[in-house]
Amino acid sequence: MSKFITIGERIHCISPAVRAAMESKDPAPILKRAKEQLDAGAVYLDVNIGPAEKTGEELMKWAVTLLQENFDNVPLCLDTANKKAIEAGISVYNRSKGKPIVNSADAGDRISNIALAAENDAVCICLCSKAGVPANNDERMEYCQEMLEYGMERGMEAEDMWFDPLFLVIKGMQEKQAEMLEFIRQLTDMGFNSTGGLSNVSNGMPKEVRPIMDSIMLAMAMQSGLTSAIVNPCDTRLMETIKSADIILNKTLYADSYLDL
Amino acid sequence: MSKFITIGERIHCISPAVRAAMESKDPAPILKRAKEQLDAGAVYLDVNIGPAEKTGEELMKWAVTLLQENFDNVPLCLDTANKKAIEAGISVYNRSKGKPIVNSADAGDRISNIALAAENDAVCICLCSKAGVPANNDERMEYCQEMLEYGMERGMEAEDMWFDPLFLVIKGMQEKQAEMLEFIRQLTDMGFNSTGGLSNVSNGMPKEVRPIMDSIMLAMAMQSGLTSAIVNPCDTRLMETIKSADIILNKTLYADSYLDL
Repeated sequence: MSKFITIGERIHCISPAVRAAMESKDPAPILKRAKEQLDAGAVYLDVNIGPAEKTGEELMKWAVTLLQENFDNVPLCLDTANKKAIEAGISVYNRSKGKPIVNSADAGDRISNIALAAENDAVCICLCSKAGVPANNDERMEYCQEMLEYGMERGMEAEDMWFDPLFLVIKGMQEKQAEMLEFIRQLTDMGFNSTGGLSNVSNGMPKEVRPIMDSIMLAMAMQSGLTSAIVNPCDTRLMETIKSADIILNKTLYADSYLDL
Repeated sequence: MSKFITIGERIHCISPAVRAAMESKDPAPILKRAKEQLDAGAVYLDVNIGPAEKTGEELMKWAVTLLQENFDNVPLCLDTANKKAIEAGISVYNRSKGKPIVNSADAGDRISNIALAAENDAVCICLCSKAGVPANNDERMEYCQEMLEYGMERGMEAEDMWFDPLFLVIKGMQEKQAEMLEFIRQLTDMGFNSTGGLSNVSNGMPKEVRPIMDSIMLAMAMQSGLTSAIVNPCDTRLMETIKSADIILNKTLYADSYLDL
């Protein structure tokens, strides 16, 4: 078993500072957030440029080159609805530290992103949904199988399809959480990699509660076999959780200083 | 599914203050620790009087009466190697808030504590061990079955046998942790209740690390279905974990103030 893969979520155009930096091609705010996340223990960095319909190709190339040149070819997760921008990003991507990740496909309109990943020897995040939130695990599994078949036909390796069970908001969908965790267990038992946007679970909760809830959900998801997640690595409690769970699952060796490593 | 049952571990003769209070029958230090634990959210209180070969019967009666009179018949976990002391404690025990717990039996020399529990309509903590630490889950399951059979023959309800997988120290037995968690899952799948002394996992770790490791292990054990644990409820981080996992597992209803409830 390999170590949990932390994908840093903080280079995201939803942040005004990041959006402004992307618009003016100002490296400083992007590099700052990249460094903070890598220092905190992120393995991959997500680069979310939004829909970026007009400028996406140029922007993704700029961001990929900027980050990889400054951080020793850090592996990246290319996050946009603009397929051409993902392809453009991959065209300048250096894979010495890991394949690029296409973020993301689903079993509906976005299924062709799996073909894009296959053509470019990339990892693909595969959301187990089609139109909206899956009603239950039968639906999740149906979509998972559809995407798997689609990917296999196009030469994807199963290990490069990282299935996302869809973390659901607890406020309003509390009774759905245990089932979602059970789905991660099913993915694990079938030998699949998995990932997901964790912080959705604590949406709408008080600010001081969110790191606590996120952390416990992540520990429970890791016990179910989750192999990666898209998170804020600057959340200390969350990183303590990942490091501790990796030790309990014997994926990294214990040392008294493990929280500082 | 019912709420996780927190058994407070802090009335333990290993503490010099508790030992002195037990020797001199001084209520104050015992009541203080009881109140702290109940305020923090403990459901049961463990009362560990040690081997107490000579004075155990009188001492356990005194402690049970003292605690139940002062805390509205708080349910108790009677913890001693002295069987007569457990029986004496039960003889004065008020079960309006819950059955007494016999702590503990195993599949070896202490198996007759299951008979004691059966005769007294008590819950029994059943350690899945015989002589020392179980080598693997096959051994754990073998001991579990032996105790189950022994208990059934004597009229125990299966739900009153709380199986303890034996939490192992991580430092030195890191590679055994995932298997132990898998055993909790097996117990859960068979419909059994489970418990254990959690803090053993972080034995020997730096003081600031222990609450973190304990908390993550507990979250992972709760995801595996653990139904109770013997813990220090005054460890804030641990109680936050229990409350959060109970919400994720839909055992208690979410409210923004859930950490204060």
